[in-house]
Amino acid sequence: MKYYAYDEFKKDTVALLKKIETQNYDAIVGIARGGLMLSHALSEALSIRNVQTLRTELYDDSVKRKEFLLHDNTAFKDERRVLVVDDIADSGETFLKVMQHLRAKYPDIEFVSVALFYKESSVYEPTFWVNEATEWIEFFWERDFK
Amino acid sequence: MKYYAYDEFKKDTVALLKKIETQNYDAIVGIARGGLMLSHALSEALSIRNVQTLRTELYDDSVKRKEFLLHDNTAFKDERRVLVVDDIADSGETFLKVMQHLRAKYPDIEFVSVALFYKESSVYEPTFWVNEATEWIEFFWERDFK
Repeated sequence: MKYYAYDEFKKDTVALLKKIETQNYDAIVGIARGGLMLSHALSEALSIRNVQTLRTELYDDSVKRKEFLLHDNTAFKDERRVLVVDDIADSGETFLKVMQHLRAKYPDIEFVSVALFYKESSVYEPTFWVNEATEWIEFFWERDFK
Repeated sequence: MKYYAYDEFKKDTVALLKKIETQNYDAIVGIARGGLMLSHALSEALSIRNVQTLRTELYDDSVKRKEFLLHDNTAFKDERRVLVVDDIADSGETFLKVMQHLRAKYPDIEFVSVALFYKESSVYEPTFWVNEATEWIEFFWERDFK
């Protein structure tokens, strides 16, 4: 297991910004909870005030298959380009479902996905990511406040 | 101006948690953008998955008075106690309007407000806060990623 400290987050977020800053974005969708700190950081660096969030829940009922619940209260109207932010594309299932859902709900918006970590076995590769995850990541927000 | 670093945020969030942990909360409302990092931290520490956000905009049209816009897509149903999270009660206007709005929208929910900083001149005092702000605070999320 790798502990991912704030200083690494800071460095990686700056690296991520270098990749995505070539274009303008109108809004950010943060995937809660994992994507919240990164959404905040990107919104400040890119001066994007329109930050909205959605929540996903992956239930494993241990008998049948996984059930994926998406609580989406986002509201977009005139936005054209929107960043979708999470911490990691691990199995990739969350990103895959969220991107499919957002593109169906808002067919006129271009959604661009970003993450700090990407696992090669993920079923979804974010448009922009920084590190390949080769072990389990414990993010600082999961440890530092306990 | 005071630069507020991550390490102080970490320490203060732990102190804030000591104040609020005596009771159970069903959900968190983070006020974007300032309250996002703290919402994420509290949600992890308190194991609250239901994190939702709302956005406020304070326009000063320089001719007339300030105009306050609130973009609220929160959706609550069976929740009974909800934390409302922002970084600072400065003028206090944001907190005041948000709390009035939430209590009117959800009369059966008990909303409890928390912030890292409180200014004595604020028109609203959060239920729980850590530091009194005596100068302008530059939060790490406003500087570290630029």
